[in-house]
Amino acid sequence: MTTASERGRRLALLGGTPTFSDPVPLGQLGFPSWERFEAAIRGICERGWYTNHGPLAVEAERRLADELGVAEVVCVSNATVGLMMACRALGLAGSAVVSTFTPPAAAEALLWSGVTPRLCDVEAGGVHADPETVRAAIDDDVCAIVAVNLWGGFADLDGLTALAAERRVPLVLDSAHAFGSAYRGAARGALEVFSFHESHIVNTGEGGCVATDDPELAARLRNIRSSYGAGRPVPVPITSNGRFSEAQAALALLALDDLESARRRNREQFDRYAAALAGVDGLRLVEPARARESNHQSAVVEVDDATFGLSAPQLVRVLRAEGVEAAAPIRRPLHRTTLFRDAAAGPLPRAERAAASLVQLPLGAALSAATAEEIAELIVAAGRSAATLAAAL
Amino acid sequence: MTTASERGRRLALLGGTPTFSDPVPLGQLGFPSWERFEAAIRGICERGWYTNHGPLAVEAERRLADELGVAEVVCVSNATVGLMMACRALGLAGSAVVSTFTPPAAAEALLWSGVTPRLCDVEAGGVHADPETVRAAIDDDVCAIVAVNLWGGFADLDGLTALAAERRVPLVLDSAHAFGSAYRGAARGALEVFSFHESHIVNTGEGGCVATDDPELAARLRNIRSSYGAGRPVPVPITSNGRFSEAQAALALLALDDLESARRRNREQFDRYAAALAGVDGLRLVEPARARESNHQSAVVEVDDATFGLSAPQLVRVLRAEGVEAAAPIRRPLHRTTLFRDAAAGPLPRAERAAASLVQLPLGAALSAATAEEIAELIVAAGRSAATLAAAL
Repeated sequence: MTTASERGRRLALLGGTPTFSDPVPLGQLGFPSWERFEAAIRGICERGWYTNHGPLAVEAERRLADELGVAEVVCVSNATVGLMMACRALGLAGSAVVSTFTPPAAAEALLWSGVTPRLCDVEAGGVHADPETVRAAIDDDVCAIVAVNLWGGFADLDGLTALAAERRVPLVLDSAHAFGSAYRGAARGALEVFSFHESHIVNTGEGGCVATDDPELAARLRNIRSSYGAGRPVPVPITSNGRFSEAQAALALLALDDLESARRRNREQFDRYAAALAGVDGLRLVEPARARESNHQSAVVEVDDATFGLSAPQLVRVLRAEGVEAAAPIRRPLHRTTLFRDAAAGPLPRAERAAASLVQLPLGAALSAATAEEIAELIVAAGRSAATLAAAL
Repeated sequence: MTTASERGRRLALLGGTPTFSDPVPLGQLGFPSWERFEAAIRGICERGWYTNHGPLAVEAERRLADELGVAEVVCVSNATVGLMMACRALGLAGSAVVSTFTPPAAAEALLWSGVTPRLCDVEAGGVHADPETVRAAIDDDVCAIVAVNLWGGFADLDGLTALAAERRVPLVLDSAHAFGSAYRGAARGALEVFSFHESHIVNTGEGGCVATDDPELAARLRNIRSSYGAGRPVPVPITSNGRFSEAQAALALLALDDLESARRRNREQFDRYAAALAGVDGLRLVEPARARESNHQSAVVEVDDATFGLSAPQLVRVLRAEGVEAAAPIRRPLHRTTLFRDAAAGPLPRAERAAASLVQLPLGAALSAATAEEIAELIVAAGRSAATLAAAL
């Protein structure tokens, strides 16, 4: 494989050979070493206990709680189901304010639980809801504020906690992206939902957990998760199946062993992107917001097309031609989708601008820091040839 | 280990040594050979594709469809989520008639989708809803009939199909127990939901699928499963996360390879129970109802306490003392639970009698046919000592 610099940066869209013959994928895509995974699975087979809150699920919940510094963790089949269960465990009914910059499955989890999303805009210069944008979307029916923490960073949880307290509603944290990150302050919401999807730093294929310091809430979550199947029985409004299998738990435990090294790997790739893109006009690598520590699991750049010379979608096309699976991290803000087109009280211009200007770059176990640097060099080269590329696109 | 016969059947509750020092568990609990599983997982790691409808999920859906003789199969995280998705894909709104002899998670799946269960009784001498009991529970608001097929057998699907056609509502089949069984007729409902929980003949830890001959319904299910993430985009009322990971798909494929041998193993154990219990007064092994072919995955006996001398709960205690994890297969009919106490229009006496008289016995990969026979011998011995045991309990 020749590097972009060796080839003198003749981009594939301009007739060069694609830099990567095997596409470089998005997502963390981490997996434990084969030996450790094999040992864990052999243990499951010997016990013949494949699901139903087995010993590995119990251990995973304990270790996840330690890692998060929280009293209770309830593991679930995936974060969407976790958020659905969370709404029911909190007894939510009414509307919940959530940023229009939310993955569809999270907003729809509210709908499944009978809660109506009210969409708010993102903060100035950022990608998260803030107290001002949330306040503008609050209606008389509000029952919760849902803060979505994106790309290893956080919304202004202190400000949102104060607003939630003022309105006497719970603050729910959708921290699908945030495992292994730490907020700069003490606020942590009534509960926090994490995802262990393959795209995140803890990969159990599908999976997730709900973390809370409230033991009563945790007891309700456990009863909802498995039709009263694990934990002391408490009254709940509804039950479901959100169980975490032993195979998922085995992967979670191994991913916790690897958490520090995965965070280091991510940080190294992130820093290479940052260094290589630092001087590029019209391009900004999004820093994890308000994180005391970040998992650095996502590299997202903001493209100012007037300065850079290419729009974000154009840059995506340039990179895809090189074998880099870059993509818009949020294809459309929710209020631009059919299902949620009436869920915002007014225009949400910042989110629309942000959605149109962001590009997510590969970062994770499937690449090395050198590959991250090479992708950054491709972007630099694209900027230099922006006029020619724009004409060719 | 001494057998019950060698010990002269001195039962543990009467001072004997428990027959099984390692408890004999309920449930199929099958797992593929280690070598084949290892090979499958290595392939997943090499591809670095752990979920999001990967190549194994695609192959599993194709092979499951072949096995079921159905046009479309949509794999899902578990059968509960599958049933929730199915209700939304069918656009159900109103009430659905379902037997009170339904696992709680299935009835609650209806609630999650905004459908109100109306509970009906079971047929005379059986455990399934039938056209007569369903008709008695239909109200003006009915939007579906949900038939739950229990223990490798089936409800009267021909009769229920006719009734559903008369009422112009879909017949939905909850076939969580029925993979590998075949109904004696041609009726198959609008769709059929299967479970791959560890307790069933196909074990993916957690997992399941929805099968249908309707390609439009399948397209809607695929769009609901993954926020429009796989398959051609079609309008759906809501989406979720019901994805089936590659690890689940690997297990499903291997379980399909093993299906015939698992069915044979089950049949052998079932036949041993049948032979050994044939002459016992007051005890009847429940035959899979209306099956042209059955997976024989469950051994459930009906206890007539007046004749047998012990009630079903008493027999459970006798067997548990021997290390046999027998249990009531339905702890309580749904109309006797808090959540559904108002969901029946009147008394449902057959289901109450059945719930109180049934005992599920171990059958599956965790035991041999000889163990099944030994458990049957323990039951015979319990019957002989019924008076003494009843006094001791």
